[in-house]
Amino acid sequence: MAEQTRIAIVGWGNIGRGVRESIRNNPDMNLKAIFTRDPARVSGEFREERGEGPMIINANIDSNDEWKSMQYVVDVAILCGGSKKDLPAQGPMFARHFNTVDSFDTHTDIPAYFAKMDGVARDSSHVSVVSAGWDPGTFSVERVMADAILPGSKPYAFYGLQDEGGLSMGHSEALRTLEGVADARQYTHSNAAAIKRARSGETDKLTAGDRMWRECFVVLETDNPAERQRVEPEVRGMPTYYKPYKTTVDFVTGMELARIDKERGMCHDGLVVAVGETGRKNRAVIEYANTWESNPEGTGNILVACARACYRMRKEGKVGAFTMADIPPAYYSSRSRAELLKDFM
Amino acid sequence: MAEQTRIAIVGWGNIGRGVRESIRNNPDMNLKAIFTRDPARVSGEFREERGEGPMIINANIDSNDEWKSMQYVVDVAILCGGSKKDLPAQGPMFARHFNTVDSFDTHTDIPAYFAKMDGVARDSSHVSVVSAGWDPGTFSVERVMADAILPGSKPYAFYGLQDEGGLSMGHSEALRTLEGVADARQYTHSNAAAIKRARSGETDKLTAGDRMWRECFVVLETDNPAERQRVEPEVRGMPTYYKPYKTTVDFVTGMELARIDKERGMCHDGLVVAVGETGRKNRAVIEYANTWESNPEGTGNILVACARACYRMRKEGKVGAFTMADIPPAYYSSRSRAELLKDFM
Repeated sequence: MAEQTRIAIVGWGNIGRGVRESIRNNPDMNLKAIFTRDPARVSGEFREERGEGPMIINANIDSNDEWKSMQYVVDVAILCGGSKKDLPAQGPMFARHFNTVDSFDTHTDIPAYFAKMDGVARDSSHVSVVSAGWDPGTFSVERVMADAILPGSKPYAFYGLQDEGGLSMGHSEALRTLEGVADARQYTHSNAAAIKRARSGETDKLTAGDRMWRECFVVLETDNPAERQRVEPEVRGMPTYYKPYKTTVDFVTGMELARIDKERGMCHDGLVVAVGETGRKNRAVIEYANTWESNPEGTGNILVACARACYRMRKEGKVGAFTMADIPPAYYSSRSRAELLKDFM
Repeated sequence: MAEQTRIAIVGWGNIGRGVRESIRNNPDMNLKAIFTRDPARVSGEFREERGEGPMIINANIDSNDEWKSMQYVVDVAILCGGSKKDLPAQGPMFARHFNTVDSFDTHTDIPAYFAKMDGVARDSSHVSVVSAGWDPGTFSVERVMADAILPGSKPYAFYGLQDEGGLSMGHSEALRTLEGVADARQYTHSNAAAIKRARSGETDKLTAGDRMWRECFVVLETDNPAERQRVEPEVRGMPTYYKPYKTTVDFVTGMELARIDKERGMCHDGLVVAVGETGRKNRAVIEYANTWESNPEGTGNILVACARACYRMRKEGKVGAFTMADIPPAYYSSRSRAELLKDFM
């Protein structure tokens, strides 16, 4: 076996757990450490496998410097926090000491986040893969390639193609950052009519709000009519996340949310469609679709493949920030060049 | 406008014409020269635009050295010949004097062709992008990425999803290389039942022959029963191209072939499906599909995007052979990094 890449998971939520599951399925990856604000809770989950298991590091980093010393035993830190509150601070802080991979997904803020991470990673001689996952991530790659291959086409993305919609982790997390919200889920639904319009090529005015609508389930810390009236407009008004979309907000109890979780699971899916013309009016269509029974595990799998690419680029002497559009696809693979040429071309 | 990339088209067939159409739609590309064995015929096609139009270069290269001197005014030569007879000789010969892009598509011979091109391109300090197009090419990229993202999955490709099938240029060209064949077309048809099996994940034994069948129309130079009896088994027995597949061979007249061309056009389409699991038994599906009303123009568009990436890599100091799986997707794009970060992530 080739040398393993040593991974730290930063943040023990759904995506952190998804990354751990993915590492189990990738023998060239080795989970060395988990950074968490609640080491006691996480240690409990790993009790039976201690000795073999990862180190659990206190991520209350104001109070200790243990996390920094982990840079000597970790090749890549996968940052699994949310884009709204965690990554804007965590990203640059970790990039000072580690190669990093993250799934920063606030599309409008990506240029600023990329610039910040690029500066820090260059200064500290690390590689930071930013905004990885499926969207942004593999879907971004498909948009860039479709645009290059079909000049003049316009790539559109749709999420939640199934009737029950798809669980958006980023949008659920955004709800949970609101004052007074104890827990929340957001299911994205695509508009079938808009998909039909995108495929037909008549896409002049397909805004994000035309393409999708958003269904929210919110558990309040203190549920009463006044609190509902205060929180609901805050949800609807949240820029980028909810303001551009038709949004439904249902207030539910913790038990009702648990039932919804059980019924719908954490599945999500998505589709990118680009329609254009080649030559003189010959129609062309490029489509890319993903279906994940577990959205956090799907994202975890992509982040782990990015960690492989990240460390490979660092070993080649590269530094700075990269998106998935900047990475040669073969870098994600654990296979040799000979194997890829023989079996995958 | 940024500096243009200066292109030569080598071989004036369907793909060469497709590349020319694509260059028209990419303002950062400039068609400087066309290499052809029949300069008089090609000059005729360009008569009305001479002065502005490309130089027409005699590619009967035994008899002249004019083609070599073109290396001083051409940044990338796009090799548009067939994989069976043209590219094995043309590829290395051109890589000695030019950066090259080709669509070498005999899957089983790709490792040897890559090694040969890599050696020549390194020796002569050029970049050669080999086996580009949609399959091999973008479909290869999707296979490599699906395998990395979904370890244990198996990506399957299907072509000719429409009832009338899809025109395979490589397989048509292979027919035309047979002694006694004046002209030919090959339409690929996918088996719908096999697509269903691939999507369901039960894919243990889906051979290429299970996935597709091949419909051939052949015009003989001298059409008679004895000649038909001689040619038909040669078609069916052609390794890689026809032997693994259920194949129908219809002998037609030139006029009948012209009618088929008119009815079916040059459309082609394809699909890659990878089904696997994340974590513990959570199902995941990745699909990529292309539909081209003009297959040669679709291929031409991809080759032109590869020429952009090829020259960019050369300017960065890279040398040797590359497949599309070795190229960062952003390199195909004429857009700035800022634009990609803002609008395509």
